[in-house]
Amino acid sequence: MTDAPASPATATLLVSCSDRTGLVAALSEFVYEQGGNILDADQHAEVETGLFFMRLRWDLTGFKLSRAEIAGAMEILGTRFDLGWELTFSDVRPRVAVFASKAPHCLYDLLLAQQLGELHGDLVLVVSNHDALRSVAGHFGVRFEHLPVDAADKGAAEAAQEKLLAEMGVDLVVLARYMQILSPEFVARRPARIINIHHSFLPAFVGAKPYHQAKARGVKVIGATAHYVTRDLDQGPIIEQDVCRVSHRDDVAELLRKGGELERRVLTSAVRLHLERRVLVSGNRTIVFG
Amino acid sequence: MTDAPASPATATLLVSCSDRTGLVAALSEFVYEQGGNILDADQHAEVETGLFFMRLRWDLTGFKLSRAEIAGAMEILGTRFDLGWELTFSDVRPRVAVFASKAPHCLYDLLLAQQLGELHGDLVLVVSNHDALRSVAGHFGVRFEHLPVDAADKGAAEAAQEKLLAEMGVDLVVLARYMQILSPEFVARRPARIINIHHSFLPAFVGAKPYHQAKARGVKVIGATAHYVTRDLDQGPIIEQDVCRVSHRDDVAELLRKGGELERRVLTSAVRLHLERRVLVSGNRTIVFG
Amino acid sequence: MTDAPASPATATLLVSCSDRTGLVAALSEFVYEQGGNILDADQHAEVETGLFFMRLRWDLTGFKLSRAEIAGAMEILGTRFDLGWELTFSDVRPRVAVFASKAPHCLYDLLLAQQLGELHGDLVLVVSNHDALRSVAGHFGVRFEHLPVDAADKGAAEAAQEKLLAEMGVDLVVLARYMQILSPEFVARRPARIINIHHSFLPAFVGAKPYHQAKARGVKVIGATAHYVTRDLDQGPIIEQDVCRVSHRDDVAELLRKGGELERRVLTSAVRLHLERRVLVSGNRTIVFG
Amino acid sequence: MTDAPASPATATLLVSCSDRTGLVAALSEFVYEQGGNILDADQHAEVETGLFFMRLRWDLTGFKLSRAEIAGAMEILGTRFDLGWELTFSDVRPRVAVFASKAPHCLYDLLLAQQLGELHGDLVLVVSNHDALRSVAGHFGVRFEHLPVDAADKGAAEAAQEKLLAEMGVDLVVLARYMQILSPEFVARRPARIINIHHSFLPAFVGAKPYHQAKARGVKVIGATAHYVTRDLDQGPIIEQDVCRVSHRDDVAELLRKGGELERRVLTSAVRLHLERRVLVSGNRTIVFG
Repeated sequence: MTDAPASPATATLLVSCSDRTGLVAALSEFVYEQGGNILDADQHAEVETGLFFMRLRWDLTGFKLSRAEIAGAMEILGTRFDLGWELTFSDVRPRVAVFASKAPHCLYDLLLAQQLGELHGDLVLVVSNHDALRSVAGHFGVRFEHLPVDAADKGAAEAAQEKLLAEMGVDLVVLARYMQILSPEFVARRPARIINIHHSFLPAFVGAKPYHQAKARGVKVIGATAHYVTRDLDQGPIIEQDVCRVSHRDDVAELLRKGGELERRVLTSAVRLHLERRVLVSGNRTIVFG
Repeated sequence: MTDAPASPATATLLVSCSDRTGLVAALSEFVYEQGGNILDADQHAEVETGLFFMRLRWDLTGFKLSRAEIAGAMEILGTRFDLGWELTFSDVRPRVAVFASKAPHCLYDLLLAQQLGELHGDLVLVVSNHDALRSVAGHFGVRFEHLPVDAADKGAAEAAQEKLLAEMGVDLVVLARYMQILSPEFVARRPARIINIHHSFLPAFVGAKPYHQAKARGVKVIGATAHYVTRDLDQGPIIEQDVCRVSHRDDVAELLRKGGELERRVLTSAVRLHLERRVLVSGNRTIVFG
Repeated sequence: MTDAPASPATATLLVSCSDRTGLVAALSEFVYEQGGNILDADQHAEVETGLFFMRLRWDLTGFKLSRAEIAGAMEILGTRFDLGWELTFSDVRPRVAVFASKAPHCLYDLLLAQQLGELHGDLVLVVSNHDALRSVAGHFGVRFEHLPVDAADKGAAEAAQEKLLAEMGVDLVVLARYMQILSPEFVARRPARIINIHHSFLPAFVGAKPYHQAKARGVKVIGATAHYVTRDLDQGPIIEQDVCRVSHRDDVAELLRKGGELERRVLTSAVRLHLERRVLVSGNRTIVFG
Repeated sequence: MTDAPASPATATLLVSCSDRTGLVAALSEFVYEQGGNILDADQHAEVETGLFFMRLRWDLTGFKLSRAEIAGAMEILGTRFDLGWELTFSDVRPRVAVFASKAPHCLYDLLLAQQLGELHGDLVLVVSNHDALRSVAGHFGVRFEHLPVDAADKGAAEAAQEKLLAEMGVDLVVLARYMQILSPEFVARRPARIINIHHSFLPAFVGAKPYHQAKARGVKVIGATAHYVTRDLDQGPIIEQDVCRVSHRDDVAELLRKGGELERRVLTSAVRLHLERRVLVSGNRTIVFG
């Protein structure tokens, strides 16, 4: 995390639990009594599973508790209600690394979003198994590291990646059309902390060359899917999807072009939602508070 | 309102006010202390105006207060926080009248939605200035009244309409391509209780023959808009809009066909949102809790 | 086919072949020399396969050849260029049977489209394995036949269906959420003459209960797919697809409602395109001339 | 125009006229007889006006006529059929100048499209009344010229622009959120050769600050419009439009962000369509061959 210059900071609390009776009241009361003004309060009760999810965001101006005290109070509430919870502060910005290969479109989109101030986090590092995108990162003033991946010894590259991520204090890894498969260990260390873009409307067209598959099947709509990475390829919780119409007139090259536009839009959108602490994971699905 | 057979009923509270400090806590606490389980809690703070909006829905099973007592408690809270508020119960279903002329598409869509159980209200009456749609209403078992409108004396038709609406206990009037302008008095008696469908993407193409206007302007997208009716034609608060792509290949007849599909979808959607008590009006805009 | 009252009739020619050199010129020249005014001329060259597709529509007013003579001329051209071709006339309207079970939404949409004059064909028959939709067909003045399907002897129902389709001169069968699987023989007799609506964005969620599958997978977009029926379930050439956004807030019931709206829109659209002779099948894909 | 290295070149012919009898045949015959293989043939007859439009694209490999001879033949056909026509060759690439101010998003999108090889033209120049985007153009290797506009003497800036456009041989000017109004004379010299992006769904919200207008009106969908510039501000022929959903939760800043994404997508799409010679202007509307 990076400490940002002081400004009207907010606290965001994400909560999941199995029994919600009194919870909204208890949490609202807690914020109110300590002088906090609630800016957003969203909740979702999943009837099928009996699970309950909540996102609470409040203004810290004039709040009576220090951040350590808030965390302490949440420990108590968490135990009392058996909560899963995550507490973050808007001025402690997550640090993001983008993994890319040769295709520049998703990387440009993320870097431009950062430059326009649209991300609630800091894109601090670009890692690539090729050197092709060095100038792109450089243009936006972001560190670029070329870490070639040796097919015979992927462990070496991964060790270098881990060292770099630790050194830079990275909280979130974004795979922007990164054409390498991460090891199960690398993934397991980052639950809901790696976002990938798949170039199809999952679960249609898993695996390689989805636009070729789409052409062969003759679909009239193509899509892109941003999801958290899990051990099962293309199977992680979906964060965002979008689609566009295609026709028989679109050859594979045109599908690639249309799809590329979807990919960057969907990936940047998913990253933005994640950084705004709007995404909760429940089993293999996400709750995205709009 | 129609009393529906007893079933797990819910209460829905819509609130708007200018100062929200402590309000979420007070309302949540109130529901919790009386044994209510909150099913939905949505809020929206309009930063520009300082206004605050909330929708709270809770299960009435085991709730300690009677409905009259809930209303009484809300009177007290309403005064304390200077609230605008509306309290409704899911088993007291709003009664709906549809005004139509000759075009059947919107009427069919509303009646089918009702038949499929998709509306949280009862469509009990169809009024028309023509006799053309009598068999449509009859097919769905809904009362139809033919009230011709004499251009020289519109007051007579309106008096008959008012009598009929009162007799049937109608809460909401839906204009399903009704080709007559309502009097300012009729409208003033029903603030946010008349929904109209305009066959364009407002504010583009106000007034007559919007599809002809769209063709003349050469737009690539057309739309439809459902809005509450106010004294100013085509200017009331927008509830729902949707659009579809068109091209130079679409002549006016095809725009009418594509638009007709938009109209019925958008109108039925707006009626459904209204009946689910998801729509709050603020000035000339709506808050629609999704 | 039904003979419609004489009106400015048009001829539509659909052509597919493997070598197109000179074909556009030859066909255009043929129409021009015989006094025809070309209204639409669309073509598509599939680079990957080397196949060529064309749709030509011209005004028959003042055309020098009789319909038999046009067909004769096409025989000659067809042999010369080794064409697959289909010649139809706008005043010979295809006759359509709808197969349905209990769900009324798709049937209503088709019948309403017919009533509004939006189909270039005549919906003359509704067949169902239940009696539930009899009044729907009756309301629109269309013959309804209840043909129960005995799971132990599906052949009997099929024989009755075949007899009925022959008697009514049906050209196109539309499966409007018909919950029975047709026999391979029934299908084989009607290549590209049976249209089905599948309630998912194929190829995602093939098989039963796609909305439940969609909920379990946590997708953010759902869809519907209209396709020609082939021996392989859910695998036939796709004619039309559309999608809508969903979120974690939508339970399965709400997915069913949203999906139902997609289903009827997509199915009616596919039927309309087919009846306007805009659809050509190539392998397992369609060419849809817009 | 820039001469590109020899490759399988194609010719594209755009035609408009008032009487089409025999025209498709004559043009197809002409291409066929000279050994050309037709790749695309699209036509559109505007029934209301009696006008006819056609786009014909053929492979020049083995074509018997030189380019000068094709032009000569078209002169004869043009006179015979009273045609408006435009003949272009795929290897003679239009040269494009982008005018921008401070906002970088549209400029990045165009430059990235160029880098990815998605434009059938060459973006050779960026002109700006500010110096802010110099490094953006530089990053993509495109010439950047800072031409400040003095409100008291706009003529000086325009003279400098004209000189630069002449020097660089520019065929198309793209206004990528250029915040200056061009003089009527500058516009008149470039009919259908200046493309602007307007940040609303025209004709809704003409003029300044459309997102503020959209917020005030409470619309549920916003859009962006790319159009050819004419003397009447925001009134020129529309080439492309697209929209996205918004809600009461989106403040003006979020509308600006969502709109910015629409703007770049719609503008780049319009430029691509223009450069592929898919756009014909008819009165104040466009024919866009898909």
